[in-house]
Amino acid sequence: MKKYIEKQFNFSRYLDGISEKQIEEHLKLYFGYVKHTNLIREKIAELSKDKENNFYVISELRRRFSFEFNGMRMHEYYFEQFEGQSVNLNPESFLAKVLTEKYGSLASSIEHFIEVGKSRGIGWVVLSYDLAGQTPHIVWVGDHELGQLGGLPIIAVMDMWEHSFMVDYLPSEKEKYIEAFFRNVNANVLEKRFEDVIQDETFL
Amino acid sequence: MKKYIEKQFNFSRYLDGISEKQIEEHLKLYFGYVKHTNLIREKIAELSKDKENNFYVISELRRRFSFEFNGMRMHEYYFEQFEGQSVNLNPESFLAKVLTEKYGSLASSIEHFIEVGKSRGIGWVVLSYDLAGQTPHIVWVGDHELGQLGGLPIIAVMDMWEHSFMVDYLPSEKEKYIEAFFRNVNANVLEKRFEDVIQDETFL
Amino acid sequence: MKKYIEKQFNFSRYLDGISEKQIEEHLKLYFGYVKHTNLIREKIAELSKDKENNFYVISELRRRFSFEFNGMRMHEYYFEQFEGQSVNLNPESFLAKVLTEKYGSLASSIEHFIEVGKSRGIGWVVLSYDLAGQTPHIVWVGDHELGQLGGLPIIAVMDMWEHSFMVDYLPSEKEKYIEAFFRNVNANVLEKRFEDVIQDETFL
Amino acid sequence: MKKYIEKQFNFSRYLDGISEKQIEEHLKLYFGYVKHTNLIREKIAELSKDKENNFYVISELRRRFSFEFNGMRMHEYYFEQFEGQSVNLNPESFLAKVLTEKYGSLASSIEHFIEVGKSRGIGWVVLSYDLAGQTPHIVWVGDHELGQLGGLPIIAVMDMWEHSFMVDYLPSEKEKYIEAFFRNVNANVLEKRFEDVIQDETFL
Repeated sequence: MKKYIEKQFNFSRYLDGISEKQIEEHLKLYFGYVKHTNLIREKIAELSKDKENNFYVISELRRRFSFEFNGMRMHEYYFEQFEGQSVNLNPESFLAKVLTEKYGSLASSIEHFIEVGKSRGIGWVVLSYDLAGQTPHIVWVGDHELGQLGGLPIIAVMDMWEHSFMVDYLPSEKEKYIEAFFRNVNANVLEKRFEDVIQDETFL
Repeated sequence: MKKYIEKQFNFSRYLDGISEKQIEEHLKLYFGYVKHTNLIREKIAELSKDKENNFYVISELRRRFSFEFNGMRMHEYYFEQFEGQSVNLNPESFLAKVLTEKYGSLASSIEHFIEVGKSRGIGWVVLSYDLAGQTPHIVWVGDHELGQLGGLPIIAVMDMWEHSFMVDYLPSEKEKYIEAFFRNVNANVLEKRFEDVIQDETFL
Repeated sequence: MKKYIEKQFNFSRYLDGISEKQIEEHLKLYFGYVKHTNLIREKIAELSKDKENNFYVISELRRRFSFEFNGMRMHEYYFEQFEGQSVNLNPESFLAKVLTEKYGSLASSIEHFIEVGKSRGIGWVVLSYDLAGQTPHIVWVGDHELGQLGGLPIIAVMDMWEHSFMVDYLPSEKEKYIEAFFRNVNANVLEKRFEDVIQDETFL
Repeated sequence: MKKYIEKQFNFSRYLDGISEKQIEEHLKLYFGYVKHTNLIREKIAELSKDKENNFYVISELRRRFSFEFNGMRMHEYYFEQFEGQSVNLNPESFLAKVLTEKYGSLASSIEHFIEVGKSRGIGWVVLSYDLAGQTPHIVWVGDHELGQLGGLPIIAVMDMWEHSFMVDYLPSEKEKYIEAFFRNVNANVLEKRFEDVIQDETFL
């Protein structure tokens, strides 16, 4: 069984409004998800040696896999967005075009993303793209695995767990974190993800 | 706003062990998901005319979108698998190769899929493929939206809601439905889905 | 460790619109919940012999206990309601009074209960009573464990899983089942439950 | 409609290892739950004026009620435990006896509670008592509403959302918070809750 490996992120610059301490603690949590994604598979393999006796336990571990796997993967999407330089979305990019088509303007698509980020509880904002329906969706995902849109490729994510900002901000200052998030995103990363999605489609 | 449209499925043959009545009732439920996927978006649009007053309501409707959208999309994946003829997985296909690589043999990958189908509660078995990790995953998804693997393309699904078999079978006969499911799947559909996923990768 | 025991229900009469076959199949599922409530505890005990190695597995089994336990308990609340004779709620009962106070009339409280029963997806309608807030609540619970009101005593439940009616009705006939449910309930059971809740309160 | 009112807690002493700032921020979040518990009911009442048109929206708001209500109520259970003085559980109390009976000793019941607190993700540890089964249960509840044991009275809770400790501790220091929690609990509050539960039972 191939193991999932901790991805190394290239943070060559200081983030603005998100401290090194915050990133450091956040990465520790990410490492925990990688570790537990592997652990859950090892435990299933171990218990499968006596499948009959362990059927129920294996089955319930499998049910939980999505929490750890998504916990790992969502953090990878997140941190990758801070690699390289902070760059705004290019209004001429394909991504900008589909967002503008749905939300009226780039500004209002960002406003929409921020609104979703103010959903009650903890989780993620996820921008994904539905090729079949030819439309982007910006949704809230609770925890890491409650409400993911099945099969849709992911273009952008914003972590709204409390651990992603509480080293720097109080819960009552959540909006400051959201602003800081947007100041630091390298939108080239998002554009690249979207281009990978549409590359073989006769698009636009 | 583009509406989602009910997909028409081409059931040119009788299914074996899944009755026409069962399919008919199941399709009615699918139509309900399409309807509500559109409805939820219309309601959000309607309420957004007074965003300030309706912020909370809009936010909670958005949270629920994944249930309706996945309910629609998962049923589309499901019914498409019964289109055309019933065909076994080609052992020479790319899909067969990655399944064999992970599960030891085609037979044991199917056995694994069936095991996951016996998970407690209602939901779906989903076979998806992780390009980043170069490995397939067969997981259980509760309801339609609890435990989807974020961003992973979907190759095969099996509906394990009680409505998908109770026209023909009792809950205590769930395994007969699973057997019938496998007798009717057109594996070409799955192979095609997988080839779309890997087409641009230097694969295998 | 004391085991949970299958409760025997006294169905001395034929139900109206809910067949013996339906009840029989439903009871089999109930027995499954009792069995798995015990099983999950046995497995935890077994794995606890090597706590260090099994910490994660134990923890995830514990998380799942609520599904099996509630699955057991909710079905007990449900079947008990069919014991004895079918009796309407006594308008002079304490329960009728608190329902009338909140919902305007007994009829509109029943209408409200039915409305909640038409929620999308599968689960339960639960009438519980909040002593601290001195008010009844009628809520939807997804699956068996998603959305239970913590700490509130339960007065009435209606099973809205598909297995509770699909032996007798199609999914598109769900409302017929709801009507049948109400024709068969022995409201004395609900009144008794409520009296147990308020017995030591200076009430009304 | 009676509104839920913010409970005032009597913190006459300094907590040990949980700062005033931490409590202050945590109380702000509690106030948010009270506010939204009321808001959700107001919105339902408002939308019910045009029930036909708003059926779906009302239904989905109702589904969400458990999050806000439990969010309110669980915090009340939590903060009440810090009122008065820090007192250990009396080994002669009824509560100590049932815990000892199940877990072998008071110390191992506390150890068990702490273990559950180390579950992955965010949520609550809840000690409740099953009168029907005559046994206490210590379970994990995800978010506020995922996995509550239906109908069981609550004896003790520990908040394991990140907001409950991150003013004082890093996520990697979670155990220090758990220790601080136990140093500050007034176990008389728990004993009193349990006595209310068993008062009319021929108990022990």
